[in-house]
Amino acid sequence: MGEQFLEITEKREVEAIIAHIATEVAKTRAKTGTFVEKVKVGEALGRIASADIFSALDVPPFDRATMDGYAVVASDTFYADENNPSVLIISGYISAGEISQQYVERGYCMGISTGAPLPKGANAVVKVENISEYEDIVEGQKIKKVKVYKPVAPAENIMLAGSDIKQGERIVRSGTTLTPRETGVLAACGINEVFVRKKPVVAIISTGNELIAPGEDLEPAKVYDVNAQTLSDSVRECDCSPLFLGIARDNLEELSEKIKESLETGADVIITSGGTSAGAGDLLPKVIEERGEIHVHGVDIKPGKPFIFGTIRGKPLFGLPGNPTSALITFNLFVAPLLRILSGILADEEGERLKNKRIKAKAAVRIFSERGRNEYVLVNLVPLEKPGEESFLAYPLLTGSGAITTLSKADGFIFIEKGKEITEEGEIVEVELLTNLFASKKLYQKIP
Amino acid sequence: MGEQFLEITEKREVEAIIAHIATEVAKTRAKTGTFVEKVKVGEALGRIASADIFSALDVPPFDRATMDGYAVVASDTFYADENNPSVLIISGYISAGEISQQYVERGYCMGISTGAPLPKGANAVVKVENISEYEDIVEGQKIKKVKVYKPVAPAENIMLAGSDIKQGERIVRSGTTLTPRETGVLAACGINEVFVRKKPVVAIISTGNELIAPGEDLEPAKVYDVNAQTLSDSVRECDCSPLFLGIARDNLEELSEKIKESLETGADVIITSGGTSAGAGDLLPKVIEERGEIHVHGVDIKPGKPFIFGTIRGKPLFGLPGNPTSALITFNLFVAPLLRILSGILADEEGERLKNKRIKAKAAVRIFSERGRNEYVLVNLVPLEKPGEESFLAYPLLTGSGAITTLSKADGFIFIEKGKEITEEGEIVEVELLTNLFASKKLYQKIP
Repeated sequence: MGEQFLEITEKREVEAIIAHIATEVAKTRAKTGTFVEKVKVGEALGRIASADIFSALDVPPFDRATMDGYAVVASDTFYADENNPSVLIISGYISAGEISQQYVERGYCMGISTGAPLPKGANAVVKVENISEYEDIVEGQKIKKVKVYKPVAPAENIMLAGSDIKQGERIVRSGTTLTPRETGVLAACGINEVFVRKKPVVAIISTGNELIAPGEDLEPAKVYDVNAQTLSDSVRECDCSPLFLGIARDNLEELSEKIKESLETGADVIITSGGTSAGAGDLLPKVIEERGEIHVHGVDIKPGKPFIFGTIRGKPLFGLPGNPTSALITFNLFVAPLLRILSGILADEEGERLKNKRIKAKAAVRIFSERGRNEYVLVNLVPLEKPGEESFLAYPLLTGSGAITTLSKADGFIFIEKGKEITEEGEIVEVELLTNLFASKKLYQKIP
Repeated sequence: MGEQFLEITEKREVEAIIAHIATEVAKTRAKTGTFVEKVKVGEALGRIASADIFSALDVPPFDRATMDGYAVVASDTFYADENNPSVLIISGYISAGEISQQYVERGYCMGISTGAPLPKGANAVVKVENISEYEDIVEGQKIKKVKVYKPVAPAENIMLAGSDIKQGERIVRSGTTLTPRETGVLAACGINEVFVRKKPVVAIISTGNELIAPGEDLEPAKVYDVNAQTLSDSVRECDCSPLFLGIARDNLEELSEKIKESLETGADVIITSGGTSAGAGDLLPKVIEERGEIHVHGVDIKPGKPFIFGTIRGKPLFGLPGNPTSALITFNLFVAPLLRILSGILADEEGERLKNKRIKAKAAVRIFSERGRNEYVLVNLVPLEKPGEESFLAYPLLTGSGAITTLSKADGFIFIEKGKEITEEGEIVEVELLTNLFASKKLYQKIP
């Protein structure tokens, strides 16, 4: 129960250390190639292509009418106009999905619908609007003919085979997130399975003698474990798969056992929460030192000072505070950037991919902070009735107490640099959002 | 293959008709109460609470130390300062998760860790920093004592039972989207299952003799069905569950059969694509008229003119064009708003919830459009190197041809009102985005 001795590292340095290791781990994952899985295109929405994808066929696979009309030899229509229509004999009709063995000779034409393959001999389609169909009697026989009132150029109203996508053409670049556009292109090429990056697996361990799992009966002196849930869902928002390994009591054996289990299950990242404050703070560093390396033990921020970062057998391991709001803030500051690199979110936006979504807001009241500490203040955002440049007021929330209601009101947090004591009412502050879902719901229309 | 006779309805009126029916259907769903399911909190991220949720217990469940320190009777410390510390006898220690039967009398104290329940008799905690522990010899016996250098007020460094959340308090409002904050609050209250709204089921039917499903062998004159995939994924982006019922040939029996199947499977909405152009355009109206009612058959927009909207047994049914880009535009204009109402996305933002995400961009080139038609032009967005008020250039894409590559390049579309023929290069245009994923990836950091 004595003071804990931390080697405080500066926040910027912590970020640099984590970014470096994240990049190393991402490279290893990319190289080994075991971090790839095949999924149905129908289940691929939002996943990331793990390799370039090429078309095995021409799209369209044949010369295709793009209008309802008549397939003709273009030169038969060159001199047609309203007063002197070209006259052609109809030799048949082709619907979409049908194929015709007929050959369209000069002086003939075939009725054709949008999407049908152009018959041999024809090289253009006259739109139905520019034609009139009629019956003529030739040598006692009824013959169907058309008058063409407007000329067509060769290839007019036709999409040539392969003009949209060529066989062998790259249709999706490696690293692309699959939206309905990409899945549609895959479908067009007849592809129904696709290789995507496996989602990184993140083992989550809660530590603390006082914790029990939600759903179980509450015993005296116990509280329900909150972090397992908030961290699992935050991991999901980073496009990773959480794997909750349960609650470890505050002793070396149980913690060590859980971490061993994380490694055995093949988790890519390990997150523990709790047990980093004065009382039980020595356990996690001991376990890491036994099996790996501690890179960070203590950061110059509040809350989150006792934050731990290490690696065991190349796997990143985070020790977050037990207080749910502190855990969520340190997750967003240090864990989320690493997970986003591993999951490949925003992989194309170098430099920007490490950041959470941010918005600007006005401080609703004066905010006081401790001098000499980089402080993170949770805020609740309230949309302004008459938004100006900013659309929100930011109300500070008390973070120290570990209150759950603070958590439920927190939309994001603002950073107050060491040395700044007062943020004035009305001052513009940058709010880092705690959840993407927030953005897609409450903020949906507020983002211009 | 003749002209199709449509009763063209104005776009605004179509939107009003659909919004009205969407609201009716949403009300029916809410009333019947069968559109609710119980899920594990661990699988509830992003789902919408279908009822208010209340806490069955106090949080914290007991008076809880918020600091490592010593549990005391506050009045014992009232006159303490650096020079005249109060001296108290240590009667024991309590860790988090433990319960002590000891009673703290005046003159005594107990060591306590953060999160541990306050022992009876004590009413405050002195922080470890403001105390020194030492051993005294009293009548030959070693006795542990503390010197308290700073007074504490009653309840200081304690969170009282129920002060965070009271038993019976509402913790989640009906209609709230569950983010990690809400799931965390549920966990804190020991809740591991929750009632959420069932996702609306959307039956999807592709029609066309020329279509075959991706993954099957390509036959002559056939093309792969694109819309099943893009529409399914677009439905997913509206928080609904797609149910693809396969491809119907262009005949009354097959189409009728598929729609019957949609109704039998309990789908909430039916979408068909293809078969609305001149050739096969009569089938869907016939099927709807037989079983229900046609509300819209033709809209004054391009592309999307032959759009159909009807209801069968109260279920909304959409007939979209077969051209993949036209299908996607009409989906976004008319289907997505209805699905968002049913799924409850943005249910708290009356009026705004019907809209897709929009951003402003600059026209990269002059854009010509047909006078007398409300026109939608697909655009590709390119981030500006030096963003000013707008961060993107919008390049128009040709939509008429049904090219798949158009689809793959389209980030969104702009609306050009009837009567406007030219959009000048550099003019500011409003782009309606085709997919939310786009926003969360390419736009992630570009949205201020």
